Amino acid sequence: MSSLLLLQSNMLFPKVLTRAFSSTTMVQLRARALIYTQYGEPIDVLKVHSYELPQVGTNQLLLQHLAAPINPSDINQVQGVYPSKPPLTTDLGTDEPAAVGGNEGVFQVLEVGSGVEGYSKGDWVIPADVNYGTWRTHSVADSSKMLKLPKEKLSLNQAATIAVNPCSAYQMLNYYESLKPGDWFIQNAGNSQVGRAAIQIGKKMGLNSISIVRNRDNLQELVDELTELGATHVITEEQNESREFGATIKSWTKGSPIKLGLNAVGGSNCTALARKLANDATLLTYGGMSMKPVIIPTGLLIFKNLNVKGFWVTANIKRIPNSRQDSINEVIKLMDTGAIVDTPNSDNFFELKDSDESLLKTFQTALTNSKKGKQIVLFE
Amino acid sequence: MSSLLLLQSNMLFPKVLTRAFSSTTMVQLRARALIYTQYGEPIDVLKVHSYELPQVGTNQLLLQHLAAPINPSDINQVQGVYPSKPPLTTDLGTDEPAAVGGNEGVFQVLEVGSGVEGYSKGDWVIPADVNYGTWRTHSVADSSKMLKLPKEKLSLNQAATIAVNPCSAYQMLNYYESLKPGDWFIQNAGNSQVGRAAIQIGKKMGLNSISIVRNRDNLQELVDELTELGATHVITEEQNESREFGATIKSWTKGSPIKLGLNAVGGSNCTALARKLANDATLLTYGGMSMKPVIIPTGLLIFKNLNVKGFWVTANIKRIPNSRQDSINEVIKLMDTGAIVDTPNSDNFFELKDSDESLLKTFQTALTNSKKGKQIVLFE
Repeated sequence: MSSLLLLQSNMLFPKVLTRAFSSTTMVQLRARALIYTQYGEPIDVLKVHSYELPQVGTNQLLLQHLAAPINPSDINQVQGVYPSKPPLTTDLGTDEPAAVGGNEGVFQVLEVGSGVEGYSKGDWVIPADVNYGTWRTHSVADSSKMLKLPKEKLSLNQAATIAVNPCSAYQMLNYYESLKPGDWFIQNAGNSQVGRAAIQIGKKMGLNSISIVRNRDNLQELVDELTELGATHVITEEQNESREFGATIKSWTKGSPIKLGLNAVGGSNCTALARKLANDATLLTYGGMSMKPVIIPTGLLIFKNLNVKGFWVTANIKRIPNSRQDSINEVIKLMDTGAIVDTPNSDNFFELKDSDESLLKTFQTALTNSKKGKQIVLFE
Repeated sequence: MSSLLLLQSNMLFPKVLTRAFSSTTMVQLRARALIYTQYGEPIDVLKVHSYELPQVGTNQLLLQHLAAPINPSDINQVQGVYPSKPPLTTDLGTDEPAAVGGNEGVFQVLEVGSGVEGYSKGDWVIPADVNYGTWRTHSVADSSKMLKLPKEKLSLNQAATIAVNPCSAYQMLNYYESLKPGDWFIQNAGNSQVGRAAIQIGKKMGLNSISIVRNRDNLQELVDELTELGATHVITEEQNESREFGATIKSWTKGSPIKLGLNAVGGSNCTALARKLANDATLLTYGGMSMKPVIIPTGLLIFKNLNVKGFWVTANIKRIPNSRQDSINEVIKLMDTGAIVDTPNSDNFFELKDSDESLLKTFQTALTNSKKGKQIVLFE
């Protein structure tokens, strides 16, 4: 096991590797996982399960989980209200059937099965599909269930959150309307991770964008920040919902159609957004942060012929062949060239470090904070 | 002009023809039209304009208007709130620019220009496009602007209303989802003319249907009537909006997906209708009788992937080549075989007869009554 020494020289996660191999043999490596045996509020039902990892099979990889985000869908999954969810099983040796929380995250390869090609120790991988259970310290998986990332091109945060937010933004801008340079789109939740990715991807595509954000004391700071990312215009929810402000928007677009709307809010915000759209435009809903439904005046459907649809990156995995791999590849390119920048220090992105005693506590803090912005847990 | 005698022997409209030719020569034939020179409530702004008809040109037809309905869109057009409207012009010799009301109606050919082929005196025609101005007693038009109907196959009411309601039902059932025999659709406004046409066309296509109607004292009579037309199930708005009743509907469909929803109501009725739809189903909105918007819970868009669209038969004329002619042809076949029956005596279908003194009064009565159901004006 001399390669361990090489891996230990990787300066990114020295502690990880020291811990992972402090056991006398590989088979004794223990993992800790954040599991649930019944649906409910994550803070109530999640608990830590410690278990021995299985031997690495011929076609398998031993994986050290490096970092995992908490997405709203992860929370809904634990609550039992999300349509896509992993089965509860006793595969991890739990007394009761259980599932591991989390769907997204980046892992480092610790050991490669003898029959696996194309992977080396130290590679970064992410799950090829949803429902993997990323909220754990280690796992063993068939190599076919993983996608390899170019670790030299991505930050840890980017790698841990590549599959959902930026890929959602990429797919929404590319799979629904045929947008050409100079075309316009409008979105709410402009300051969310999807919103920021859409601004940047749109900029790279030559699109003009209008991003709606919540008003705040330091609004100009946020406007400057999003403009720096590539936003053409940033407006408040109040401006979006003001009839008078419509003239300002028309003076910006100068008659060019706003062909696409991205909605993660719902309610009156979404209705006002829909009114900005051109004839035959598409309104994609990927979230409902206001907890209010999508409300569309009849005339916008009949006379403007709006196409009102939902967007769910998880469903697209099956619905659009290769959508996950294709969009990850495109997003990697955009991150590599700096078209999508890492924003871990923004006011809606928080890193938390797991420590030995407090995996549960770390996640509970992250879950509590997750309304403020994206929480990323780094496993130690 | 011996053919006039032949026409006079047509027993359907003896008075029409007597009047039309009481003038000493054709050029002196006068028409009366219901015009508006400004937008507003039809009852306020409509007035009668009497004018001399032009000579019939080489490629033209002289037309006796027989019957015209009052559609909600006709009213909205006069109000100035309908996106499709005819220009106001002085073509009819009015002092101020004016337009003639009405978009739908059936006309009888009185005279055929020397260069016109395929038309004979006595033929029934309808306008090939919208904004023709059907609320008048006579007109002269290029033959290319008309579509010929097989008068032997249709009642006058059917011919006068063929282009909007049954064609809307036909297009909604055929152009948006690929429905096969045994498939299900659900609609509100089941007792409207579109609703009745959809029931009958759906039955002919082998589809199962659920029609939502307003509760009423004689509900069972209406249920029986719609069932007779071919409705699989007829339910009330209260049943549609009851969570418990969902189980009854599931017991009917036995797991078969409800692939299409037709909405002419909006509000909570439409939301409850949308909840009945299967994954990937289409919800088409063609009206908003409740004056409330279309309200769709976020989850139905994201997780059920509903496609929420509008339907406008007028826009389809341009959007889907030949849609008007194709759907008229199909509807004619269905009427000819009795698959779509004439329902002039139903409680939402009213005929009114124009008389010489009171064209304006007749329309005013029809306009006032038009909330109760379809009004048809027969020109005398």
